[in-house]
Order: sequence, then C-alpha cells, then structure tokens
Amino acid sequence: MIKEGEFVILYGGRKANYFLQYKPGQKFSSHLGEIVFPEELEYGKILVSHTGHKFLVLRPSLSDMILNIKRQTTIMYPKDIGYLILETGLREGSIVAEVGSGSGALTTVLASIVGERGKVHSFERREDFHKLAIENIKKYGISNRVKFYLRDVAQEGFGIQGVEVIFVDVPEPWEIVRWAKEALIGGGFWASLSPNVEQVRKTVTELLNQGFVLVRTVEILERELLVRESGTRPKETMISHTGYLTVARKVSD
Amino acid sequence: MIKEGEFVILYGGRKANYFLQYKPGQKFSSHLGEIVFPEELEYGKILVSHTGHKFLVLRPSLSDMILNIKRQTTIMYPKDIGYLILETGLREGSIVAEVGSGSGALTTVLASIVGERGKVHSFERREDFHKLAIENIKKYGISNRVKFYLRDVAQEGFGIQGVEVIFVDVPEPWEIVRWAKEALIGGGFWASLSPNVEQVRKTVTELLNQGFVLVRTVEILERELLVRESGTRPKETMISHTGYLTVARKVSD
Amino acid sequence: MIKEGEFVILYGGRKANYFLQYKPGQKFSSHLGEIVFPEELEYGKILVSHTGHKFLVLRPSLSDMILNIKRQTTIMYPKDIGYLILETGLREGSIVAEVGSGSGALTTVLASIVGERGKVHSFERREDFHKLAIENIKKYGISNRVKFYLRDVAQEGFGIQGVEVIFVDVPEPWEIVRWAKEALIGGGFWASLSPNVEQVRKTVTELLNQGFVLVRTVEILERELLVRESGTRPKETMISHTGYLTVARKVSD
Amino acid sequence: MIKEGEFVILYGGRKANYFLQYKPGQKFSSHLGEIVFPEELEYGKILVSHTGHKFLVLRPSLSDMILNIKRQTTIMYPKDIGYLILETGLREGSIVAEVGSGSGALTTVLASIVGERGKVHSFERREDFHKLAIENIKKYGISNRVKFYLRDVAQEGFGIQGVEVIFVDVPEPWEIVRWAKEALIGGGFWASLSPNVEQVRKTVTELLNQGFVLVRTVEILERELLVRESGTRPKETMISHTGYLTVARKVSD
Repeated sequence: MIKEGEFVILYGGRKANYFLQYKPGQKFSSHLGEIVFPEELEYGKILVSHTGHKFLVLRPSLSDMILNIKRQTTIMYPKDIGYLILETGLREGSIVAEVGSGSGALTTVLASIVGERGKVHSFERREDFHKLAIENIKKYGISNRVKFYLRDVAQEGFGIQGVEVIFVDVPEPWEIVRWAKEALIGGGFWASLSPNVEQVRKTVTELLNQGFVLVRTVEILERELLVRESGTRPKETMISHTGYLTVARKVSD
Repeated sequence: MIKEGEFVILYGGRKANYFLQYKPGQKFSSHLGEIVFPEELEYGKILVSHTGHKFLVLRPSLSDMILNIKRQTTIMYPKDIGYLILETGLREGSIVAEVGSGSGALTTVLASIVGERGKVHSFERREDFHKLAIENIKKYGISNRVKFYLRDVAQEGFGIQGVEVIFVDVPEPWEIVRWAKEALIGGGFWASLSPNVEQVRKTVTELLNQGFVLVRTVEILERELLVRESGTRPKETMISHTGYLTVARKVSD
Repeated sequence: MIKEGEFVILYGGRKANYFLQYKPGQKFSSHLGEIVFPEELEYGKILVSHTGHKFLVLRPSLSDMILNIKRQTTIMYPKDIGYLILETGLREGSIVAEVGSGSGALTTVLASIVGERGKVHSFERREDFHKLAIENIKKYGISNRVKFYLRDVAQEGFGIQGVEVIFVDVPEPWEIVRWAKEALIGGGFWASLSPNVEQVRKTVTELLNQGFVLVRTVEILERELLVRESGTRPKETMISHTGYLTVARKVSD
Repeated sequence: MIKEGEFVILYGGRKANYFLQYKPGQKFSSHLGEIVFPEELEYGKILVSHTGHKFLVLRPSLSDMILNIKRQTTIMYPKDIGYLILETGLREGSIVAEVGSGSGALTTVLASIVGERGKVHSFERREDFHKLAIENIKKYGISNRVKFYLRDVAQEGFGIQGVEVIFVDVPEPWEIVRWAKEALIGGGFWASLSPNVEQVRKTVTELLNQGFVLVRTVEILERELLVRESGTRPKETMISHTGYLTVARKVSD
C-alpha cells in the first residue's frame, strides 16, 4: 500500500511520464485527461483518466528520484553514482559524508542504500542549497538517516571522524582533500566528480601529496541501443560527457 | 576491529595487491617478503614484511569483492551492476531475485546493499555453480540475507512472488520473461545482461509481448583518464564491451 | 584566383557560415548585412558587409562540400568516408564505383581524390537522385572524372570490370555482393555503410559466401574536446551513431 | 602486372599476413611453407606454398602501408589520417607540408593522394628520421612527389609559401604555429595530432593568438563489431586513445 505523501510515477506512455506525490482524493490533470487519486493505491495498478487514457502507477527508481528532484544545481548522473557505489563499497550500514548537499539528489541515493543502520553526513556552505536539500529529503521520507550541516568544509573541515566514504561534488575538490584525510577511517574512500581536466589534475595531485593511494580517474559513458522492428542500432545522439570520476583510498599515517 | 575470517586487501603498491582472509597468526608470503597477521587488526593499518616492504590493510570495495571472487563463470562488471542498481532502485530493504547464481559475485553485491531487512533469492540450475555460490557467500559472512535455489527457472518458474527486482544473467533471458512476470510485484523491474545483439533482440521482443513497459537497452563504457607528470590523456586501451543491459517494468494485468 | 561559379565559404563567425557560389558583382544578404562579390577574389581575403561585419573567404574542405551539398538523401559522414579511403587505399589515379549516387556527396569526395587520371563510376536506380547527383557534381566542376549510370545494380549488375574499390550505400548491400565480385579486380575492395546490425549481418554473411576475405566491420566515433578559458572537457553531447562500416577484399577464383 | 620492387601483401589467413617486396624468383619462407615468386604476378592471384598452403596476393591499402612501414617513431593511425584528409580538403593536386617526416608513414599517404600534380614538403630536424623517411618513400616508388628537408621548423620556419595544408606531428606543435601562418595560403589548414590534453591546450591557445579561426579539436574512436555465427557484438577490447586532432584555418592579415 502506498503511503500518503510518497512519490509515484504515473506512466501514460513514452511521452507522458509524471512524477508526483500520492495524496488520496487529489486531482491530477494532463493533456491526457484528469485523474483522481483513489483512497487506496498500490504500485503496478492502472488508473484511468476521465478521457479513458491509462496510467500505470510505478514506484520511482533511484534514477527517477534523482532526475525528478526539485533542483537549483546540476546533479550527478545515475551512471556516475552507480559506478562510485560499486567502487567505494558503499552498502547497507555505511557511514558516509558528502560535500556539497546541492539539491539533495545524491543524498537521496546514499540514504536509500545505507539504510537505518547507516548514516549520511551532508555538508553545504550555501544556505539556499542547504534548505532545499533538507526539504527534498523530507519529501522522500528518509530524513532520519541524514544529518545536514551548513558549513564550509574547505575552510573549517568536517568536524567529524570515522567516515568510510566521502563524496565530493564541488568546483574545487582539491581544497577538501586534507580535511577528508582527517575525517576518513584508514583505507576509507575519496570519490569526486569534476567536469574539467584541469580540476581533475589539481585534485589528483593533491590526493597524491596527502598520501592517498589507488588514485584512479575514469569517465562512464552510457550509450543506448535501439531495438526496433526496422532494425537494431545505437541511438543517433548521446550525452557524451558529464564528468570525470576520481576515486582514492586514505592511508593512516 | 577486523573479525577472523573477514576478507582484506593487502596493498603493497601498484603491482602487489592481495585479496585474502584475515586469520590471526597466519603467515602470508609474496615476492615482497613474509607477513604474519597480528592478533588484532584494523583497516588502514600498515603491516611490514620481513624484508621491510610495507602493506596497507584495506577493506575490500564491492568492486574488489566481485573481481576477486573464486569463479567458474564470467562475472558482471562493477560498472554494469552499478548502473542497474540505480536504474532499478535497488536499496536497503529490497526483495530481489537473480538468475543464475553463477559464482555468487552479483549475489554478494545485492546482499551487501539490501541489508538485514532485505532478501536475495538466488536461482541456479547447475549444481556445481549453486555450491560454489553458497560457499563464496559464506566466506563473505552475509549468508543470512540470501536464499539459494537449485532450480531451472526457464522450466519451472521462480515459485515465489512479491519480488521487486529480478536480475537475469543467463544465455537465454527470453525464457525467463514470462516467469518474471509472475514473480514480480506490479511495476517491478526486469534487469538483464547479454553480450550479443541477437540475445537482446529476442529478450526485448518477449518483454514487449508480455506487456512490460519502459523497456530500454544500454551499454556502459568505462574509460580511464591517466593523470601523469608528463601529461593527461585517456589510457591507450580499454575494455570496450562486456554486455548490453536491458531494463523493463512489469504492468499488473 | 577564384573562378566564376566556384564554391566558397563566407565565414563571419561561429554562427554565420555561408556556403555559396562565387559570381562577380552578385549580391549576398544575411542578418549581418549585404556583401557584393568583387570582380576578383582570392581565398583568405576578408569581405566587409555594408554594416561593417567581416567575412572571411574560405575554400570549402571536402567535409564542407559534403555537408553543404543540395540533398534529398542522408549522406555519408566525413569521419566515415575518411576511414574508408584509408582502409581501401583509394588514391590519385584509382578506378572506383559507387552504389548509389544519392545526392552526389560521396561522389564529390571520390572524384576530388582520384583526380584526372582516375575514374568514378556512379550507379543509381532512382532517376531523381541520378539527376540531382549529376547537377551537384557539375557545380563542383569535376564532371569529367565521373561517369553516371541510371541502372539498378541489384538486378543488372555493374556492366563494367577492373574496378579497384566499390563503395555501397544502399539499404540492401547484400544484393550487390555477387555483382561486386564480377566488377572488382583481384584483391579489390568492398566498402559499405549500414545503420542497422541486421543489415551488417546479412552483408557479412553474403561476402563470406562469395569468398571475400579480410571482412571487417567497425564504427567510427567522433568526439569533440572543448578547450575553453574555463577548462578543457569533452563536449556534452555527440552524434553517437551514423552507421557500421564493412570492408572486405575479393579473391580471384 | 606488379612491378619488381612493388610491395604486396601475402594473405594466408587471419594470422598469416605478410607485407613484402615483389622480386621475381625470390623465395619467401613462413611456418606455412615456402613460396617462390613467379616471373609475372598480378593482384588477386593465389600462390601455393610447397606444403600446399594458399596465399592471396593483395595490393596494400594506405592503411597497410602505414602500419607496415619500417619505423623508429610512433605513427599516425589510419582513422586519424582519414579524418584529417576530409576535414582539410586534401585532394589530388594539393600542395601540403608536414612536420616532422618521422618514418614517412603519413608522407606516403599524402603523396598517394596528391598525385603527380601535387607536392608534399616534408620537414624533419633529426637526421636519422630524415634518412629513414627518404628510404621508405623510395621503396613505395613515389619519391618524385615529395621534397624532404632536414630543417628545424620550430627555429627556422618553413622557408616556403603557398602551402594549402600543414600536418604537424611533433611534441611541441605550438612552436610551429607562427611559422605555419607564414607558409600557408589564406584560408589554408592547420592539422595537428597530440596525445596529451596539455599539448592541445597550448596549441589551441597559440592558434587563437595568431588569429587562426574555426579551431576545433576532436578524437576519433574506432570500435570493431564482431559478426559471428554465435552472435554479433562489439569486440571486447579496443584502442581507446591515439591522440587529439586539432584543425584550424588561417586568416590573411
């Protein structure tokens, strides 16, 4: 049973995909007609609009949650987050930190994976982003797994220790490195995303200077294959760059 | 504190990386000398061999666990698993199934993410693989989250229901589709990997025939960027194909 | 000195690029003002519009000629043509054939490279395309190097022999293979482009059946690197698929 | 009829590919047996070794000539050269220059395309490379189309003018830019290859400083598609980086 306030996807076909909160009795309108949410609802059910169009009720994937979040910032793409989760060993129960909170998109994924026994420490220096991230996470109903900090890590550090993984998505990741060294457990993971080669170079240099090991930078490309009656072929256009991902591990002194 | 039997990585430099079980008092030998595991050990510590070489003690990432598992089969690559986790919304508490168990590499990742409140149902028709997967998961200490079945799903189906995500890594995924429809909750996710275009085509056709929606196939490419004193450039060679990933969602009848 | 009727590019900045024929005294208008072509003109000169905007006079590259041709068909991309030229050894003096003529874009490149001592035999079954290709080549002033045929090669064959390279850009390349075997010299090259995997499969199968060797299929990807003050990074989007290129060599019986 | 001294490929199957000079009466030995070259030979013929193995006599493609040249340097890959030919409009009759001559691989392609009415000016500062390039071009029988210079262009410039295209493959391309401006015709093309991002950045900056326009950098990726009985899929590994290609056009002052 879907709880009041939970997010759902109403899927009415390729070009009619809606991401919204379930509220019993509430009306939803689109060019395909009007729907009233029933008192009880389950994922996988079909709702029919007053014009007869069918909408499938779907539970949002992590990818849907990221791409549909209310945002004021660029977000990390699912393909990149997925890679970093596997590389850093993030799992149920992990203690992680992120800089910055941004719109809370990555925060949402991290909190969904670490679960009730884990913790996400989310740092942001801009008050507007800080508030937006808090608001977004609240909507997703997983606020208890996240602790938000309005704090400039580049200047003041994390102020916490024992972190297993640190995700960094700020324009100057190299300013965070020495603080990450303090906050991480021995062998803990650094994971950052940067669009430009120059940013990568500075970050990698600082990681090596601070004694991090297994420093590695990759980019992840996602290419769609179209399977059609008329033939099978890669899609004609693609997003070819979101950012470079740098992973490294801390050594205890 | 690392528990007896837990896996660790001994990192002694770029070409001296060892994945092994921690057993207090046990000796480990390599071309860089001999190490005796101490009675107590923590991640991030450094052990020194009798010839003076330093080894860093690291907790394996999910990626390390996959790539180092004892195997008799090909495995799904971290980049592909990471993508599927985000696309399917797999998270702490999820109920998932996989066909087949193979060497238990994917099983390990799934179990690490769903945690104590989730469950992984792992199906395999070959007895040797079935046993190997059980053995491998036992070593990783997460057996309680996994239920193994020696069963040919293509012939007999899953025999369970209420599954949120089904991962399929067998040569004929299209034979699993109708059974997946029975086992999945409404809106539940299909996720399969196939190396060949012909396999993808058959699978996609069957998914559409069985009424699945949001059917999408992609490939994920990982390209390393080398950051060196002498200059920054992509690595000269790369793995350019592991498989096509197909994701789809079930509609309730 | 540029001859009357020759094509030039008027380059007035990133978004003001015009491809047109030089005619002394003729007026050209754009949103950047009006230009009158002088009686004498050379490549590399700058023309100034009546509003003061500067336009650089450039000789079109082969790539410009292809992308600006008057067309009713899709065209082969420069990146793909360039690869095929190198792989087939096309050079000054070569005798080549193409099926079909299309809009004459590939014809133009082939004729520009084989020169006065070479020959391009261009086959097309649709009269409208046939006429368009003839017209386009005439504009480029290299008609004497090309012989056009209104002929359905799939049904009637080439009717010529001694061809060194055959370029095939039709929806059913496999229907051309047996005729190519007749027309090619021993060791001569087959080069075809197809968007779909299924087309490639049929073509490769037929090439092997007809005894061709060194059969190889590739795709060529072009990815732009943006070098900006703000940083260096790959462009965010790219064309990720134009077609698969299949090359093979004929064996004499 | 193949002339004495001309290069041929003896193709005896996937792993038995030999590139050698044709000399009537000369013996050639491999693990597949011995062949004696007949007095007369044509492309496409089959020669049989004393052990019964068949070898097909093929004319080398431009790609074969590049990849088989006797070399002391890295070479530009066919995929990259092909792209640059199309982008720069190189064709029969063109006047081009290259820095440096290297092993003469690119020189060979350029000379094959510009033909008897064109000219290749090839500059090299190292005497050993200069001699090797001259020797290699002589073997290919196209020496009359090439003029070799033992000269350090970075220090002394080209000393010639009226060049339509300049190819640059040296570690410091930015040192060549101002000299290229002198040597090129108005609208003439700059084309350089560099492995590292830092080299690209310096080169692009200098090109813009010297007033070049339409400056663009790309990388070209070649990915093989395997078409097998067992299925169709991209090859598992690929060369993922050879170099970045920068093209630009000169403006007359």
